Amino acid sequence: MSDRREFRDLANPEKAHEAIASLDLAPEPETVPLDEARGRVLAERIDAELDVPGFDRASMDGYAVRARDTFGADEMDPATLDLVGAVHAGAEPDVTVEPGTCAEISTGAVLPDGADAVVMVERTTEVTGEDESGADADVVSVEIRTSVAPGDHVMFAGADIAAGGRALGPGTEITPREIGLLSALGLDEVPVRGRPTVGIVSTGDELVRPGEELHSERGQIYDVNSYTIAAGVEEAGGEAVLYPHAGDDYDEMERLLVEASEECDLVLSSGSTSASAVDVIYRVIEDRGDLLLHGVAVKPGKPMLIGRVGDSAYVGLPGYPVSALTIFRTFVARAVREAAGKPEPRTATVTGRMARQERYSEGRMRLMPAGLVHDAAGDTLVYPVDKGSGATTSLVEADGVVVVDPDTEYLAAGEDVEVQLFSPDVRAPTLFVVGEDDPALSRLLDRVDRPRHLAVGSREGLRRLRDGVPDAAVVAGEPGRDPVAAPDPTADDEPVPTEVVGEWTREWGLIVPAGNPDDVTGLADLVDRDLRFVNRDSNSGLRITLANALADLAADRGTTRREATEAVDGFDRAVRAHESPARRVLAGDADAGLGLRATAERLDTGFVPLGTEPVRVHANPARVDKAGVRQLREAVADGDDVFESLAGYDH
Amino acid sequence: MSDRREFRDLANPEKAHEAIASLDLAPEPETVPLDEARGRVLAERIDAELDVPGFDRASMDGYAVRARDTFGADEMDPATLDLVGAVHAGAEPDVTVEPGTCAEISTGAVLPDGADAVVMVERTTEVTGEDESGADADVVSVEIRTSVAPGDHVMFAGADIAAGGRALGPGTEITPREIGLLSALGLDEVPVRGRPTVGIVSTGDELVRPGEELHSERGQIYDVNSYTIAAGVEEAGGEAVLYPHAGDDYDEMERLLVEASEECDLVLSSGSTSASAVDVIYRVIEDRGDLLLHGVAVKPGKPMLIGRVGDSAYVGLPGYPVSALTIFRTFVARAVREAAGKPEPRTATVTGRMARQERYSEGRMRLMPAGLVHDAAGDTLVYPVDKGSGATTSLVEADGVVVVDPDTEYLAAGEDVEVQLFSPDVRAPTLFVVGEDDPALSRLLDRVDRPRHLAVGSREGLRRLRDGVPDAAVVAGEPGRDPVAAPDPTADDEPVPTEVVGEWTREWGLIVPAGNPDDVTGLADLVDRDLRFVNRDSNSGLRITLANALADLAADRGTTRREATEAVDGFDRAVRAHESPARRVLAGDADAGLGLRATAERLDTGFVPLGTEPVRVHANPARVDKAGVRQLREAVADGDDVFESLAGYDH
Repeated sequence: MSDRREFRDLANPEKAHEAIASLDLAPEPETVPLDEARGRVLAERIDAELDVPGFDRASMDGYAVRARDTFGADEMDPATLDLVGAVHAGAEPDVTVEPGTCAEISTGAVLPDGADAVVMVERTTEVTGEDESGADADVVSVEIRTSVAPGDHVMFAGADIAAGGRALGPGTEITPREIGLLSALGLDEVPVRGRPTVGIVSTGDELVRPGEELHSERGQIYDVNSYTIAAGVEEAGGEAVLYPHAGDDYDEMERLLVEASEECDLVLSSGSTSASAVDVIYRVIEDRGDLLLHGVAVKPGKPMLIGRVGDSAYVGLPGYPVSALTIFRTFVARAVREAAGKPEPRTATVTGRMARQERYSEGRMRLMPAGLVHDAAGDTLVYPVDKGSGATTSLVEADGVVVVDPDTEYLAAGEDVEVQLFSPDVRAPTLFVVGEDDPALSRLLDRVDRPRHLAVGSREGLRRLRDGVPDAAVVAGEPGRDPVAAPDPTADDEPVPTEVVGEWTREWGLIVPAGNPDDVTGLADLVDRDLRFVNRDSNSGLRITLANALADLAADRGTTRREATEAVDGFDRAVRAHESPARRVLAGDADAGLGLRATAERLDTGFVPLGTEPVRVHANPARVDKAGVRQLREAVADGDDVFESLAGYDH
Repeated sequence: MSDRREFRDLANPEKAHEAIASLDLAPEPETVPLDEARGRVLAERIDAELDVPGFDRASMDGYAVRARDTFGADEMDPATLDLVGAVHAGAEPDVTVEPGTCAEISTGAVLPDGADAVVMVERTTEVTGEDESGADADVVSVEIRTSVAPGDHVMFAGADIAAGGRALGPGTEITPREIGLLSALGLDEVPVRGRPTVGIVSTGDELVRPGEELHSERGQIYDVNSYTIAAGVEEAGGEAVLYPHAGDDYDEMERLLVEASEECDLVLSSGSTSASAVDVIYRVIEDRGDLLLHGVAVKPGKPMLIGRVGDSAYVGLPGYPVSALTIFRTFVARAVREAAGKPEPRTATVTGRMARQERYSEGRMRLMPAGLVHDAAGDTLVYPVDKGSGATTSLVEADGVVVVDPDTEYLAAGEDVEVQLFSPDVRAPTLFVVGEDDPALSRLLDRVDRPRHLAVGSREGLRRLRDGVPDAAVVAGEPGRDPVAAPDPTADDEPVPTEVVGEWTREWGLIVPAGNPDDVTGLADLVDRDLRFVNRDSNSGLRITLANALADLAADRGTTRREATEAVDGFDRAVRAHESPARRVLAGDADAGLGLRATAERLDTGFVPLGTEPVRVHANPARVDKAGVRQLREAVADGDDVFESLAGYDH
């Protein structure tokens, strides 16, 4: 452990950008079929090789004429021209229009020799001849009831695109309209910029690929970075290649990095959270390549490495998923896009106002994960998301990153900041709701477009709602009655102004093993008997409801609430989510857990009912008309099917 | 022709939207591998099936301790704990931390039994024992120089995501960050909304697929709509299937449409510009399906058909490429996106100010193709592009469509309008330059990011520059000296205020067949001899230079300019682009054509030099600092390689 690599001389982030820019990732241009060209970038200028159209083309159904023959013609005094034939689209004309004649012509057909204009059919009348018996027979001539000028209703050869003309420039992004122009030129293959190939080597003995079996007892976790960074590479216009995981073994790491460098334009390593794997990579790069830069004055991301392995560029990303994606987004994606010739999408950044003040002073550039929410006026508010960069959920609880300058000591509430979104396709949620974790809520949110729900518990939910960031907080029980909660030093004396936009009730109690083997009958058993209990965390409304019930029990007995809770083995053994205590009971780690009847039914456990508590959706009164809040209100109002499907729920 | 289908009862465009919405395009959900899930949309809610992390996990390198053993420890009075072992990431702990002991632990490793906190390595000192000889040996204990609380530097099981919790909702667009969360949950397959399959049947006997041989003499043109609409379908989240072209034959059309309807969720027909093919389709839909609506009060797009063929939805698009893409963009893409579950991209529309007034009054909704340009302040100006919808080049000369209400008689200059872009990836050009068609200019534009160049000729270019829309106009010769141009009734008396940001000269003359078989020596030969000549169009600066030279010749001879031009056989035979006269000469259609020495060299023709003319880039003085204008100025200044590579050019 004394060999831990220290990054003492941290590089300026600008130097990191320069170092990455100095690595040449751009692959050779290639040729792709037209139907695969969308989203690619032209490698060279396309000049027209042919005239479009390739012939003088009728742009109306009507008659091909010599314009001079129609001069002076009008409704009252039409010109009559002999009909000498017809020309259809896709056919070679077999007539010539001599003075005094005309030919029927379809839109798109070749203008026959002699003709120089088309009269549209609406301005003509067919004149039939007589057959031998004197009856009407074939059309022999046409009355032209308008004058036309040479060129009328004709698109001349080359009028759309002329041979030799510039059609599209190098660097043009190919969207459907460019496909159209390339089609018109007859091209079925297109020279495009190559897509840089990016190899991804995840490191860490503890990583398991999604889909494989996970051994948590050995400390295994699923590999998040490989697929995430691969998706980021593809989004930036590169082609991702995943390599097998490397552990901390030098030879294995060397073999993988060298193999990747031979096959790719850029090699990224990521995934290990331990210093020893970073050390191994460091040595491999020094031995088999060239280390341009190690350590950048940025948080997160300090241990970033930039260099070369063999002929390939190399960047070492940090291991925590949010850090890895953030560093990729900030430093690497641009280089991939530039190598692919693609501009940064316009939607890659948004500007918003800081929802509240955020302090920071570490003397390093900070990449602050941030979430977005729209206020009542539809303006974008930005708030920091700080769950610790080890949390994968930060990936979806934040929308992007605010780059905070090392000299910035704080961002003021209301200050404009730019958020670099994790993806150009990321958008602010339509509803931002925080608070209690509740199975009915989860189903109701399925009926809201793009909601964001943070299960931070009822008490923390109310606190955040008061701070003005979320649209709504879901609160279970009566957290105001909580007899033990420490007073919140940041709380106003004023009650939180909220508007309840939905409400239901749920039955709570003790989750016990199936068949209730310990014959638990109520709260008194937890206090009086030697039962291992699992509680929820202190922000949970359900835990507050339990604490209130214990206080009532203590009052009945003439003891204190503290005596009651201290007598419960595990009152402070808190787990995070509504099913977590039940799962501990199922795993045999506890004899009873705090939970809902609905959870007991879902997981087939025993259940000892203790009461019913309300669950209320409190909205920010200024935002009750926001589309997402209205959708949630309607989902609750129309949610009978949800409440009926969950045992112990009522609405 | 008397059977032409008339669309007399045109439906309101809103009815067309409703009719398309009533067709169910949504395919069944499907399951895709995680690494193909980016860009797809979740079909159902994903709840966590496991805790993440699955174990209590060290989030720092350091020592696993019982927090109680560190209470009171600080720099001055460290606690000393016996070292009982080590736990590494990815390994099952083989130690238990009893009171008074600690275990070395790596970031990511399983917290061993007994421990409830981690002390970071920076706050510890290893203490080595002595071996038998009294020398330092193994580390036997660790000094802890800080107090930690239970849970410090530990991420408890389920703290990131708890089993049973809501992870992602249905309808979530999958971007890299969602890939991250799905990875953390161990999912390697994802249930997603199906992509609607859209069959495309192009109609018209005259169509040829790009890449195949084109017979212009038979009126053939390349099929633009199939690939363009296919790219639009893919962009909207659908899967496009191209079917062979159908001509106007009923049986063939029926077979193709029925085949497509059996394989696709939606069938689109497009491509024919003639009424007869529309008639055939109309009959097939009536016989084999259900026609909900035919004809919509919109320009372009009147002949739109909406209905069903078999079990599939059907929409008939107009034939002209811009009309087809416009109607697809306005009416169909939304339905495809909704079927795929994808929201409209934020970049699909932009708002800008009308650059000039545009009149319109036809009583039908108008879909006006519009271009975008940024003014000096960076604001977006919008101008109509009206080359006739038959022109493929409108596809790339316009950026999108402005929907103009039937009641709107005009859009005022400066009025805000919304432009529905042809693609979310379309962006305004950085440089908008109009005017003369010049081979050096084309090469110089390759050095400008995203330029737009419209080869409208020098005179028209100057007119447009004066109107304030483009950034610059390229002008060849001295159009102000033009002795015959009709006075422009819209022109101000004031000279055009422009700033010349680049200038070069080019040698012009007569293009003649290789070897100059007619021994042409100068302009007098055109006037005096019986030579077939091909000129450029009247906006061309080169043509004006020629006219001026003819005027000089006439003056020398004491005749009039009109006599001189009338004596030239083909002075009014005008073709559009700078190479077009040379190509007519090469094809044997003319004995001499107006052109450049550079063109003669490129196409290996003969050349009779007549003079040198200047080419100047006139910029809008307010926009000389716009990035694109600066790039062009620099490209000209640094363009010696370009000018040296073109015969007859000088700089």
